[in-house]
Amino acid sequence: MNLLLISIGLGLLAIVYGVVTSRQVLGASAGNARMQEIAAAIQEGAQAYLNRQYTTIAIVGVVVAAIVAFALGTTAVIGFLTGAILSGVAGYIGMNISVRANVRTAQAASTGLQAGLTLAFRAGAITGMLVAGLALLAIAVFFAVMIGPMGLTAASREVIDGLVGLAFGASLISIFARLGGGIFTKAADVGADLVGKVEAGIPEDDPRNPAVIADNVGDNVGDCAGMAADLFETYVVTVGATMVLTALLLTGLGDMLLPMMALPLLVGGVCIVTSILGTYFVRLGGGTNVMGAMYKGFIVTAVTSIPAIYAVMTYALGDMGAVIGGTNETLTEAFDPVTGRAVVQETVSLGFTGMDLFLCALLGLAITGLIIWITEYYTGTKYRPVRSIAKASETGHGTNVIQGLAISLESTALPTLVIVAGIIIAYGLAGLMGIAYAATAMLALAGMVVALDAYGPVTDNAGGIAEMAGLDDSVREKTDLLDAVGNTTKAVTKGYAIGSAGLGALVLFAAYTTDLRTFFPDANVDFSLENPFVIVGLLLGALLPYLFGAMGMTAVGRAAGDVVLDVRNQFRDNPGIMAGTSKPDYARTVDLVTKAAIKEMIIPSLLPVLAPVVVYFVITAIAGQDNGFAALGALLLGVIVGGLFVALSMTAGGGAWDNAKKYIEDGHHGGKGSEAHKAAVTGDTVGDPYKDTAGPAVNPMIKITNIVALLLLAALAHGAG
Amino acid sequence: MNLLLISIGLGLLAIVYGVVTSRQVLGASAGNARMQEIAAAIQEGAQAYLNRQYTTIAIVGVVVAAIVAFALGTTAVIGFLTGAILSGVAGYIGMNISVRANVRTAQAASTGLQAGLTLAFRAGAITGMLVAGLALLAIAVFFAVMIGPMGLTAASREVIDGLVGLAFGASLISIFARLGGGIFTKAADVGADLVGKVEAGIPEDDPRNPAVIADNVGDNVGDCAGMAADLFETYVVTVGATMVLTALLLTGLGDMLLPMMALPLLVGGVCIVTSILGTYFVRLGGGTNVMGAMYKGFIVTAVTSIPAIYAVMTYALGDMGAVIGGTNETLTEAFDPVTGRAVVQETVSLGFTGMDLFLCALLGLAITGLIIWITEYYTGTKYRPVRSIAKASETGHGTNVIQGLAISLESTALPTLVIVAGIIIAYGLAGLMGIAYAATAMLALAGMVVALDAYGPVTDNAGGIAEMAGLDDSVREKTDLLDAVGNTTKAVTKGYAIGSAGLGALVLFAAYTTDLRTFFPDANVDFSLENPFVIVGLLLGALLPYLFGAMGMTAVGRAAGDVVLDVRNQFRDNPGIMAGTSKPDYARTVDLVTKAAIKEMIIPSLLPVLAPVVVYFVITAIAGQDNGFAALGALLLGVIVGGLFVALSMTAGGGAWDNAKKYIEDGHHGGKGSEAHKAAVTGDTVGDPYKDTAGPAVNPMIKITNIVALLLLAALAHGAG
Repeated sequence: MNLLLISIGLGLLAIVYGVVTSRQVLGASAGNARMQEIAAAIQEGAQAYLNRQYTTIAIVGVVVAAIVAFALGTTAVIGFLTGAILSGVAGYIGMNISVRANVRTAQAASTGLQAGLTLAFRAGAITGMLVAGLALLAIAVFFAVMIGPMGLTAASREVIDGLVGLAFGASLISIFARLGGGIFTKAADVGADLVGKVEAGIPEDDPRNPAVIADNVGDNVGDCAGMAADLFETYVVTVGATMVLTALLLTGLGDMLLPMMALPLLVGGVCIVTSILGTYFVRLGGGTNVMGAMYKGFIVTAVTSIPAIYAVMTYALGDMGAVIGGTNETLTEAFDPVTGRAVVQETVSLGFTGMDLFLCALLGLAITGLIIWITEYYTGTKYRPVRSIAKASETGHGTNVIQGLAISLESTALPTLVIVAGIIIAYGLAGLMGIAYAATAMLALAGMVVALDAYGPVTDNAGGIAEMAGLDDSVREKTDLLDAVGNTTKAVTKGYAIGSAGLGALVLFAAYTTDLRTFFPDANVDFSLENPFVIVGLLLGALLPYLFGAMGMTAVGRAAGDVVLDVRNQFRDNPGIMAGTSKPDYARTVDLVTKAAIKEMIIPSLLPVLAPVVVYFVITAIAGQDNGFAALGALLLGVIVGGLFVALSMTAGGGAWDNAKKYIEDGHHGGKGSEAHKAAVTGDTVGDPYKDTAGPAVNPMIKITNIVALLLLAALAHGAG
Repeated sequence: MNLLLISIGLGLLAIVYGVVTSRQVLGASAGNARMQEIAAAIQEGAQAYLNRQYTTIAIVGVVVAAIVAFALGTTAVIGFLTGAILSGVAGYIGMNISVRANVRTAQAASTGLQAGLTLAFRAGAITGMLVAGLALLAIAVFFAVMIGPMGLTAASREVIDGLVGLAFGASLISIFARLGGGIFTKAADVGADLVGKVEAGIPEDDPRNPAVIADNVGDNVGDCAGMAADLFETYVVTVGATMVLTALLLTGLGDMLLPMMALPLLVGGVCIVTSILGTYFVRLGGGTNVMGAMYKGFIVTAVTSIPAIYAVMTYALGDMGAVIGGTNETLTEAFDPVTGRAVVQETVSLGFTGMDLFLCALLGLAITGLIIWITEYYTGTKYRPVRSIAKASETGHGTNVIQGLAISLESTALPTLVIVAGIIIAYGLAGLMGIAYAATAMLALAGMVVALDAYGPVTDNAGGIAEMAGLDDSVREKTDLLDAVGNTTKAVTKGYAIGSAGLGALVLFAAYTTDLRTFFPDANVDFSLENPFVIVGLLLGALLPYLFGAMGMTAVGRAAGDVVLDVRNQFRDNPGIMAGTSKPDYARTVDLVTKAAIKEMIIPSLLPVLAPVVVYFVITAIAGQDNGFAALGALLLGVIVGGLFVALSMTAGGGAWDNAKKYIEDGHHGGKGSEAHKAAVTGDTVGDPYKDTAGPAVNPMIKITNIVALLLLAALAHGAG
């Protein structure tokens, strides 16, 4: 309980940081009246969208909560509601900080580059720390309440159900937020570009464009609120799954059970401290290398996390060399506690030590660093991939898109190899618990990673406000410089989230198989690749991200088309807009995109909720329950295997397209206005729904599929019992 | 032996059909001198390319043959060389018919639509029947020689190695042919379009474009020769794998062994008769519904195949109700003969009857019909998908590509569901043998399907020749009408090939696991999804098609860039070209594309050959041989699961983009020259390497990975023994 209290204390530290830093940010000047007016319009639109989004989600949430309550009981539904509400809160906070920091960043940038960077990055850091802190507190407090006031045993079924419910709530809200926000932001962005830049020939962020406020609202509700909910979900699911796996697999721990279950929380907590520390090192140091400043902060966080994690592990476990999990004899009686499989032929060596877990955590930090580096390679303007797309733009729209697609396919290779190596090494060190700890350590850095990401939309908005308010061109130049790394940092977070999802989902799959054996000890489920129902499950699982991606892309295309029509109508009905004599009806466009995004987000979001249930019941009806369980299990892995590639290729490819356009705008291959630039704008448009709608939403989709399967097992067992 | 002789006789019938029909086609008028001159240039270019391609492949082939001979002995290497040489021959024949029929079709079209259709379709049918006939003869004659003159036992290891060697030879050549031809055709096409249509503003197939001959050569070496080699490979591998599986699994057959091994050949043989029959029903019947005429022929073939297959099965097996494979007792001694798995817990019901196999064959025919129907839905101009892309073109290049990508992602869903249903039903009827027979029946229709496909490039070329020779516009209108269904029929073949590959590869995977148990009886390989090395294998397998696709797309982009530079240089150095006073140097461009395609095809083609070997040895070094085998097996399934989606999405998406352009050219959304048309041209360009280079080459890639794994097992066993 002591360890839990420390974790809660560290989580509260993140909240304190958020509150204190918010005051600093809000204390900064919000610029002149015109700037404040624009910012207010953006703020109002974002608020209106989120209110409507969460109202709609609440309806779905209440229905799902009723099902959870009926099937799994009170504790699970408390968990579900906690996860769902806090996921929503994370999104709200992200949006609220962002819509206030944007205008202040624009103002700060007018005094200097470092001032703008400091303000925007602090805003990002608030969101980052609050996401990590809230996620940590959600699990730690809920767990403490369950084993304290509610009097439940730490490894009991009710506690496990509660933690799974918590994860489900977070995931369900996050897929809606990611997808709804993603559709909003890209429909507005694509629509505004098509009708503004292409048809009317006015520059980006021109106040005459009726969709310009919607475009800026989109940055806040998609890239900021949606992203925050997504990372909150990833954190809760990963850390929660590690705790659940500990309870399920390490059954002979005795006194060590509670420390082992609290350890992931402690790792998360101590990394909040190192993340806060890192934020103070994000400084330009005289030059203009914004990415370099970001790296400084990240490296400080990553390096100081190493001794910090070692310290909390030693504190929690005592002897780092002692074998965890009791002796082999007690462990091998029922099943292999590391793999969860029945031990048939040999006694596997099971012991892992605290040192092994520490090495796995280091591995997680290394994976995070490598994924950041690979993502920067694929999306940064300095390297071959982006430059090859820029070069291909010289020969037209078609070759730009061909090369972009080639890069997006190629970009999956190195992250996959890193993840594969991570699986092999972590498993070799400490079995499934090793993989769980690698994933936990990855997520422990979430505060810092989200800080880097949330910085992006703030600077993007700041640029828009500077343009619309008619500030001096030098201000826009500075915000552009700050925004230039935004595409990369945004892509980094997505690569990081999907990479951790790859590891986290394996942990969830292990929970599924272990649960299966617990709930249905008589089932004879064959998970072998030689079982055709396993192949059927893999194929159906791999299909889900494709179908989901198709729906997301279509939704953006359709909603963007609506925006185009609305803007054309406004131009036609009110010629004063283009003349600059009357103001366009910004709110009408915002309202239209809001309705479209909310309508379009429902069906794709329900796909991963319903698919596992349908597959289980259909296959069970055709070939019996054992094959139903086998197909369902394979579906879970199919979603991971298929989804990893779809998500990696879309997020990296989209980032590369965007930066290829930026690279040309910096004066290469003919610069702005050239034919190459037009081709690059096409590529950027294509990449938009790839990287900001369909791609990132695959991450919560993978997790939901897995969690629904876990809940289905529990519900079936409750029904049978 | 009697059954084998009948199969050989039916195979020879296909050859006779080919020879007789060739005479009819070649006897038709080849038009005026200008037409003949153009046709000769195309012919010369295609001949030169194929000679160079096969010379290069021969070098790789000899090296691989030496390895096969060293590792597996004489019979296997004879098989390898037979497969390789005949695969090459199939490509040569396809190209040779096509380059002679093109000009004659142009001439025939000047007399009437039906005359043009008859000539072009006959040319396609020659290629179709020769591909199916040669493939059937390759297996049947080689098998007859092995068990006759060479005195080997039908189910012996040497015969199995020989058949696997045959399949490997066919696959290896076919991946080079598919990829090399695919790079050639699309580099020439994209390059010609970019510099001709876009830069110089001259129409497609304008004789002033130096790349125009290369573009027409591409149709013949890519869509015709490459496709023929690919389908030859698919046929040999599928039918061969069914025979190998029979030998491996049904060990207690006794006198029924030879009939059961010959049965797939008989099914293939009798469907050659029904395919020939079907070709005579491809008639317009007065109207202009070319696709309807095609359907008539296909339906006649499919429907008459039902009684035909039933007849040969009854003839070969006698009592269709008798259980095949002896009693359960003899079969369950070693392992479950249906699944190939060791029987641990229960005695599975094993028996299947001739009737069950017949039903599985019917299922295969049904799958073929459904895939054709689904492909037409996704690529035909009458339906929502293509029209949605055409509509999205109104708002620009970006939205065209976004909608095209959405459709390409979505198009994977229905084929996957059909394949999944096929697996479940076939497996329920007759286990793995059921899946094998469904796949065999699919391929039995190859003669007819290839006929539909090979018709496309002939009409495409005919249109080009009509344009270049300055024939009356009415001729071009007729060839355009004939060519309009070409995109759909081309997409159909690819969907069909990849769908059959999905089933065929499962059969190969079963052969892998069975071989593993035969060669390494002491190995304790865990193929469960709970083994992390299985997950590692699945991830690495799914990565291969992505990496392969990236290489293919990049190669086309790079080679097309070279074409653009060459054409620009020709225009600059010789201003008479654009003025029409002097002729461009067509041969120089052909030569350039030839060199580029051959250089670019090598590395991607070797990826599936080397990947299984590397993965096996690396994982074995890290985690022992058992896990090496497990990861390798999972890699095979990962390639199927990943490759199926990549190939389906690319081929259907590319076809849809192409036809969206055609739909606009037919006068919708502004017609030719409108902004929507320009956007649609971009989509078409993007779809080109998708559908004709990267997508279709995934099919042989999947098979090669599987076959190399089988050979690796055999080689390891020979080395150990």
